[in-house]
Amino acid sequence: MGTVNGAQALLASLLNHDVDVCFANPGTSEMHFVAALDRVPAMRGVLGLFEGVATGAADGYARMADKPAAVLLHLGPGLGNGLANLHNARRAHVPMVVVVGDHATHHKKYDAPLESDIDAVAGTVSGWVRRTQRVADVGVDAAAAIEASRNGEIATLILPADVSWSEGGDPAEPGPVSSDPQVDTDAVRAAAKALRSGDPTVILIGGDATRASGLSAAVRIAERTGARVLCETFPTRLERGAGVPAVDRLAYFAEAAEAQLAGTQHLILAGARSPVSFFAYPGKRSDLVPDGCAPLTLAGHRGAAEALELLADELAPDTTAALAPAARPELPTGPLTAVSVAAAVGAMLPEGTVIVDESNTAGVMLAASTAGAPAHDVLTLTGGAIGYGMPAAIGAAIAAPDRPILSLQADGSAMYTVSALWTQARENLNVTTVILNNGAYDILRIELQRVGAENADTPGPRALDLLDLGRPAIDFVKIAEGMGVPARRVTTAEDLTAALAEAFAETGPHLIEAVIPSIVG
Amino acid sequence: MGTVNGAQALLASLLNHDVDVCFANPGTSEMHFVAALDRVPAMRGVLGLFEGVATGAADGYARMADKPAAVLLHLGPGLGNGLANLHNARRAHVPMVVVVGDHATHHKKYDAPLESDIDAVAGTVSGWVRRTQRVADVGVDAAAAIEASRNGEIATLILPADVSWSEGGDPAEPGPVSSDPQVDTDAVRAAAKALRSGDPTVILIGGDATRASGLSAAVRIAERTGARVLCETFPTRLERGAGVPAVDRLAYFAEAAEAQLAGTQHLILAGARSPVSFFAYPGKRSDLVPDGCAPLTLAGHRGAAEALELLADELAPDTTAALAPAARPELPTGPLTAVSVAAAVGAMLPEGTVIVDESNTAGVMLAASTAGAPAHDVLTLTGGAIGYGMPAAIGAAIAAPDRPILSLQADGSAMYTVSALWTQARENLNVTTVILNNGAYDILRIELQRVGAENADTPGPRALDLLDLGRPAIDFVKIAEGMGVPARRVTTAEDLTAALAEAFAETGPHLIEAVIPSIVG
Repeated sequence: MGTVNGAQALLASLLNHDVDVCFANPGTSEMHFVAALDRVPAMRGVLGLFEGVATGAADGYARMADKPAAVLLHLGPGLGNGLANLHNARRAHVPMVVVVGDHATHHKKYDAPLESDIDAVAGTVSGWVRRTQRVADVGVDAAAAIEASRNGEIATLILPADVSWSEGGDPAEPGPVSSDPQVDTDAVRAAAKALRSGDPTVILIGGDATRASGLSAAVRIAERTGARVLCETFPTRLERGAGVPAVDRLAYFAEAAEAQLAGTQHLILAGARSPVSFFAYPGKRSDLVPDGCAPLTLAGHRGAAEALELLADELAPDTTAALAPAARPELPTGPLTAVSVAAAVGAMLPEGTVIVDESNTAGVMLAASTAGAPAHDVLTLTGGAIGYGMPAAIGAAIAAPDRPILSLQADGSAMYTVSALWTQARENLNVTTVILNNGAYDILRIELQRVGAENADTPGPRALDLLDLGRPAIDFVKIAEGMGVPARRVTTAEDLTAALAEAFAETGPHLIEAVIPSIVG
Repeated sequence: MGTVNGAQALLASLLNHDVDVCFANPGTSEMHFVAALDRVPAMRGVLGLFEGVATGAADGYARMADKPAAVLLHLGPGLGNGLANLHNARRAHVPMVVVVGDHATHHKKYDAPLESDIDAVAGTVSGWVRRTQRVADVGVDAAAAIEASRNGEIATLILPADVSWSEGGDPAEPGPVSSDPQVDTDAVRAAAKALRSGDPTVILIGGDATRASGLSAAVRIAERTGARVLCETFPTRLERGAGVPAVDRLAYFAEAAEAQLAGTQHLILAGARSPVSFFAYPGKRSDLVPDGCAPLTLAGHRGAAEALELLADELAPDTTAALAPAARPELPTGPLTAVSVAAAVGAMLPEGTVIVDESNTAGVMLAASTAGAPAHDVLTLTGGAIGYGMPAAIGAAIAAPDRPILSLQADGSAMYTVSALWTQARENLNVTTVILNNGAYDILRIELQRVGAENADTPGPRALDLLDLGRPAIDFVKIAEGMGVPARRVTTAEDLTAALAEAFAETGPHLIEAVIPSIVG
């Protein structure tokens, strides 16, 4: 492309490394990057109206594409707006290349109104941070960022405006793809010993072990040895449904998780972290590993499937993993509840659907009612920062354009990044959003009760009012239509199944507002 | 109140120091704080559906109440979501007490999914950060936070959940209010000398000098000495209109600001920073101080009005500041444009209105057309992080319940924190929002042209597409109605003036979507 400026070199470097989608919410300091899009037409720029939409979309994209997208953010405040979904992405161990435009190098000392400490904020979510100081380094730095991201990390490249606009960029040539981590054979041996002991053993899977190959290996081992398999509470991407080996997930509430793990003597961690309570509660344990059980790390988030396969070949060479049988709930009827919503989803789910699950309390019955639905993927809220689902659905749809995306979204969480709907409309993505509208932060009403009981405080009306979303009621149909997404409200199971059928049959985004009662009451 | 837990001690400490509003978006780790609201009913809890709404509201509140509000945020992601408006608040030098709930002290080592480096993120926007480690310290720490905030800083108190829930809190008794900074008499003398020199002199005002007393003093000095008075580009709170001494603001675009300052030999900074370009541009200066002119700092953001009064008493003891005469534009007619919108606002503005101005490019004519409108205040985008206006309007309305709030909001910026409308409805606030909908990030189309010209790159269609908000068109009437705010769309000046009259006459929030052409075309 002849002489290029820094922005053009960056775009070319990204493309040379197969990064060809950029989720963007640019500002003045990124205008050269934006201008360069016309020079590098193979890069798809996807606009978000808020930075959390861009970062969440890049996360959903990476989970389905198994490669990084780029994200373009504007200075420190833009990074701040994107931070919550970067937190989720960090916990998901997805690859992502975040480009944060900054003031020109010579401008920083003036402490202009938008000056802030980008490096400090970026450091809290990034496995790799670099500030490019010279245009000649743009290509090298971009290649290093991409390489770092492929370890399942957020790589943040801070790009001063003058580095972007200066001539003398040198695009990085395609480089080697990083290799998978080596399997730790000592760990495999130790796990095999535990599994052969006959003691009660749990294999807790996560990371890359929650797809078909890892699931199959884990289930084969379990069938042969009597161990149990559990999946981490919030997997990055879980394959499940008819024809896929089935695993239960570790429960969210610590009491339930402790019950699942009770009596375990060997806990083998295959891509998962040692289980801990999501939050602390007065007088309750944080560490959920049973007394007398020492966790054994078989593999980190990458290479877990491979380690399990080695282990399965050793322990269960002739065992075939049982696959979940096809089974759908009957079509539900009557008033909508969390139960009938889940049944409707189970009954209607198309083959190959990607479920982006931010249904929170309203999704409590979802796993059971979709266990035998046609094979599908589930993306979950890995970092607990709400406002993830609707943006992630954008990225999943762009990475997997031939698959239906079902975005199951709690009402409270939906409002953090609701402008994601506009991008879904703009890009005409096949996303069906179901808003589970119970008019409250129901999870917090539960947590308030749990916490309040310890304090012998009955939650008072002013506390409960602060968790109430019903005054005024949020009309998601109008909000969706306001952003160009066709929408309807349903209050019966029959109407929900009809609405799902219609949404799955048509291209482009749809929103269904499912009005359900609170499970707290 | 007998024995109290940490959360109760914190609330009592805040109240004892006259902090009686808390803008909140809580999570599980803040449930004890929420539960304590029923024990401390004098604290008003205001729910935001997104943390940026809460932090922006606290900023708007502080600007009108001249005292801090508290903000309650959930862990690192909650702080991240609130960061952009904390950035604006930092640049506004407003007092604010931010309480960030964290995991229990004993839980942090487990690196639970929501664990993150709160301290690092908080440090980028806070003048004061403390992590309370023992319940006995809650009262002392809260008092220190409030004291720090009164210097015009964000004070962030990180409150672990167990500190919140443990008994043994000790509420801080009311403490002394911090005193104003001493006037620097050397600086007053130096400024007086410059002003007496007869050389071309500009007094650039900001901080607390943009209210009646500071304006009056600055204008008296100018009238007596021939100096000119300019107001910083983005004042925290500017009093203006009929009966108030009038000052021009320094222009946003550096070229225009340089023209305003050309020939200045003495630049006296009274509460304002030395002027710099908002962004850097290739081949253009960042520092806007003319060559040969050394800025002279009379006062920082606090004490600037007092310093100007001393100076005025010395230089212009018998001079009375001229006051802006009452003058309104004629009622505009015909199609809406940025010009006729501004005229409609000038023609209709009620006495005592607080204008929250995030109109960006669409507001270019606003200052001229409201210069003689009844006295009003203007709150501006001090830090340049968009998504400020609609949240700030909440806080302004709560601080000044008897004044009309006019929230002038550009369409692109509106979408960052649009859920502020829901809180406006929930609290039945007298906020009239006018969305200036030109269907584009117009400011970025201008910036792209400025930048593109330097590069001899004509902006291409893909770049322009990334700045286009018209595909699909955003229907702000539906979005507002979806959040419980009555709304209408207007396309003529006549309809806009009618809609403004109606909105100002009724209590509660209203939204008017004013469809205007882009000024870029």
